[in-house]
Amino acid sequence: MRIDVAFTPSEIDDSRVRDRIIVVVDVLRASTTITTALNNGAREVIPVLDVETALKMRTNLSAELTLLCGERNGRIIEGFDLGNSPSEYVSERITGKVLVFSTTNGTLAAAKARGSREMVIGSFVNLSRVVEYLSGRGDGDATILCSGKQNTFSLEDAVCAGMIIDRLCELKPPVLTDGARAAQGLYKRFGRSLLSLLNSCDHGKYLASIGFARDLESCAAVDSVPILPVLVDNTVLKILQPQPPIGGGAADEERTGVKSSA
Amino acid sequence: MRIDVAFTPSEIDDSRVRDRIIVVVDVLRASTTITTALNNGAREVIPVLDVETALKMRTNLSAELTLLCGERNGRIIEGFDLGNSPSEYVSERITGKVLVFSTTNGTLAAAKARGSREMVIGSFVNLSRVVEYLSGRGDGDATILCSGKQNTFSLEDAVCAGMIIDRLCELKPPVLTDGARAAQGLYKRFGRSLLSLLNSCDHGKYLASIGFARDLESCAAVDSVPILPVLVDNTVLKILQPQPPIGGGAADEERTGVKSSA
Repeated sequence: MRIDVAFTPSEIDDSRVRDRIIVVVDVLRASTTITTALNNGAREVIPVLDVETALKMRTNLSAELTLLCGERNGRIIEGFDLGNSPSEYVSERITGKVLVFSTTNGTLAAAKARGSREMVIGSFVNLSRVVEYLSGRGDGDATILCSGKQNTFSLEDAVCAGMIIDRLCELKPPVLTDGARAAQGLYKRFGRSLLSLLNSCDHGKYLASIGFARDLESCAAVDSVPILPVLVDNTVLKILQPQPPIGGGAADEERTGVKSSA
Repeated sequence: MRIDVAFTPSEIDDSRVRDRIIVVVDVLRASTTITTALNNGAREVIPVLDVETALKMRTNLSAELTLLCGERNGRIIEGFDLGNSPSEYVSERITGKVLVFSTTNGTLAAAKARGSREMVIGSFVNLSRVVEYLSGRGDGDATILCSGKQNTFSLEDAVCAGMIIDRLCELKPPVLTDGARAAQGLYKRFGRSLLSLLNSCDHGKYLASIGFARDLESCAAVDSVPILPVLVDNTVLKILQPQPPIGGGAADEERTGVKSSA
């Protein structure tokens, strides 16, 4: 496997996602929140780019079944049901619901990845699931797509990408591009205390300043939500169900797998 | 001073360069070659985005005075006078000439930076000049813009940005964004041997494979070309002439300075 890292969605175009496995990482907080929501019983998550699309979707889907979720500048969108804090996504609120989800950065990254062969969601809270999944994908090429912040670099996403790569190197060493080597180096430099990292990075400081300091603890908790969200039929995120591997992966059948969603 | 790093030109738009000092870094090889050319007697360098513009410029300028320079995929452009190897830019060939210069990545980065307050060219070969210049710019904000490769991350540019920041921290510690912290971390991790770095990074390996291994040695030679190219009147690069600092810089008057080119 050859693995690459894009540090912002602007590095990605169709030619760079086609035939590849894409791991979308938005540690603070979309990846963490979507993973938590699916683990806590949400039926599916539909990522959408803008508020208008989300509002239209509620009209088209069953209003009772649907929750509008997301943020702009870290805060819940006016008229929406839930924001982008993992703490809001408790079972009582979301079990069986379809979550129409729009955030500033994570959903842009997910939209950019739609032409890919497969797309999964990665964060610290489901890190080992992402690593197992990639190690079972045989010779397919993968790109870890960091959501960043408004198309600029975010340290926490880069370190998460690097941690995935570092773990993967222990299992099944991939060929690393410059971006992947850099991410791994950043993990080794900044990954000793993930909570310190989240408290010191630009977006972490911003979230703490608007009252979400507690979210940083949830987002730093490695493997606390051990499921793998995967994009199905190019539209919705669901929990990955085990399927045979593609492209020559061996001995991973029980572990995980997914059909092409392209 | 607050310092940021953009790892690819795609992170940059007008709003992110306005009122800022931009350092364009393209270690392999445009920054190194432009700096070498000006040091070896070129009158000025005009960065242009495409071949057509370069050809038109030769018609408009004196043909005797002008050289068309640049590369696509590392190789000299058909019909041009010089490629993008610093070794080609010897005094006998370029003294007094206007170089119309087009490369795949470096000139795109330079074009993106045109709305900035000031733009200079940085690389390992003129690293200390860049550091001195930034430390003399008072409270102005700066962005180091890595050219990358076709809008993807290049490790050598990131490490060069990090080395500039690391040196600057010794002189006059700036406030670092996530991107700047990451670049500094990458320098500390990969900057021990710059030649090993250039031999192992993606673009360095490519250049060696097409016959430019020797260029990597020139590009790794810290402070071997101690001048500072600066964009003047938004169109041409020339060697910086000393001027008073802006924005409250103290005690740096003899050292360096530049008027706004915006």
